[in-house]
Amino acid sequence: MSTVVNDHDEQQPDVQAEQVADGHENCAHATHGYSQDKAKYLARLRRIEGQARGIHRMVDEDVYCIDILTQISAMTSALENVGLSLLKDHLNHCVVDAARAGGPEAEEKIEEAMAAITRLVKS
Amino acid sequence: MSTVVNDHDEQQPDVQAEQVADGHENCAHATHGYSQDKAKYLARLRRIEGQARGIHRMVDEDVYCIDILTQISAMTSALENVGLSLLKDHLNHCVVDAARAGGPEAEEKIEEAMAAITRLVKS
Amino acid sequence: MSTVVNDHDEQQPDVQAEQVADGHENCAHATHGYSQDKAKYLARLRRIEGQARGIHRMVDEDVYCIDILTQISAMTSALENVGLSLLKDHLNHCVVDAARAGGPEAEEKIEEAMAAITRLVKS
Amino acid sequence: MSTVVNDHDEQQPDVQAEQVADGHENCAHATHGYSQDKAKYLARLRRIEGQARGIHRMVDEDVYCIDILTQISAMTSALENVGLSLLKDHLNHCVVDAARAGGPEAEEKIEEAMAAITRLVKS
Repeated sequence: MSTVVNDHDEQQPDVQAEQVADGHENCAHATHGYSQDKAKYLARLRRIEGQARGIHRMVDEDVYCIDILTQISAMTSALENVGLSLLKDHLNHCVVDAARAGGPEAEEKIEEAMAAITRLVKS
Repeated sequence: MSTVVNDHDEQQPDVQAEQVADGHENCAHATHGYSQDKAKYLARLRRIEGQARGIHRMVDEDVYCIDILTQISAMTSALENVGLSLLKDHLNHCVVDAARAGGPEAEEKIEEAMAAITRLVKS
Repeated sequence: MSTVVNDHDEQQPDVQAEQVADGHENCAHATHGYSQDKAKYLARLRRIEGQARGIHRMVDEDVYCIDILTQISAMTSALENVGLSLLKDHLNHCVVDAARAGGPEAEEKIEEAMAAITRLVKS
Repeated sequence: MSTVVNDHDEQQPDVQAEQVADGHENCAHATHGYSQDKAKYLARLRRIEGQARGIHRMVDEDVYCIDILTQISAMTSALENVGLSLLKDHLNHCVVDAARAGGPEAEEKIEEAMAAITRLVKS
């Protein structure tokens, strides 16, 4: 587990509690764009965790390098697809809501989404 | 290093001996390019498995979509880096050995490596 | 020049004329998100065309392969950056306008943008 | 045209002349891996230059942003494919030759090729 994820673990409960208390608009609440498909996302991430375990076992069992690379590409692709699905839900909910609310928030949300898209394209 | 890796260390010599007796050829034996750094690869893959678990928990706890996307990009990048390291070890061992052995095998190995590189570039 | 681009060349004038006649909503008119920065985009694309010419000359002059690959990566990166800028302008104008207009159009625009983002991520 | 390409234009003739005079090994001469397919590479790069011109015209004629993004992805993909072909020729010639020559040069060539592959994967 990376420290980045750890940081999130510790911060999240407070942030969330605050957001639920606020109880309002544009993804500042606990019901995000992806929430209605949460079970599907959790299942996809479980499979990706299984792929990581599979690749670990392949290295441990001295499997041929090229076969491991094939699994790594498949896993990278599965991860990117989860990222793209989350992004779509985010645009359809948080960004559309911000646009409808008016004000400068839509532009901020798009700035933020573009940073995430750039990381996906460049990674 | 885990006991599993230790177990393998003990098995390795026999497997290798058998294959060398077979008169072996390039990477068709248990000692792949990555074998000497096996412990490091296993540790990196363990961390990636932890990242997958962390992202699963983030979705489960309704963390903000953009923060999840940041973790997905970090994990994708970590996976690609493992792939690139494996590829380098593969070129340095299997491909160089095939080139030195002469014959058509080097070209076959490069064809195979190029397919893996293309998947990495396109995924 | 690819046939796809050729097709566009031939179809575009009519389509545009029609759209201007319609004179209405969400990027169905000639003033797209990128229009206000048109001069900058044209200058960036001119530079990219120059990079293509430079790489052509490098191959023609038998420059070392690795140096050509460096230029290809730089050019790919420059192209992707133009794509990401266009996407940002598109989200800020066409998608935000569609969201504000209400109705199902926002979702269609996001579906369309996601297809473009997926191509950028996977290419 | 980038300054990097300009630098190459000015340096290349001397370097090449010197290398031809040396008249020897592992891609240190004017006959690179890609030389036998030079005409094909030049034609592919000519088409890519045409794609750049086509995209420039699309922006100039206010074509719909998403259609421009489609062309940018197609052009990025064409460029990457030229890069992958050059890399394959490089591995088959320069890297294989270095491996056969023995000594530390093979490892250096692979180090250099890996840097180029990493740029392709990450760009």
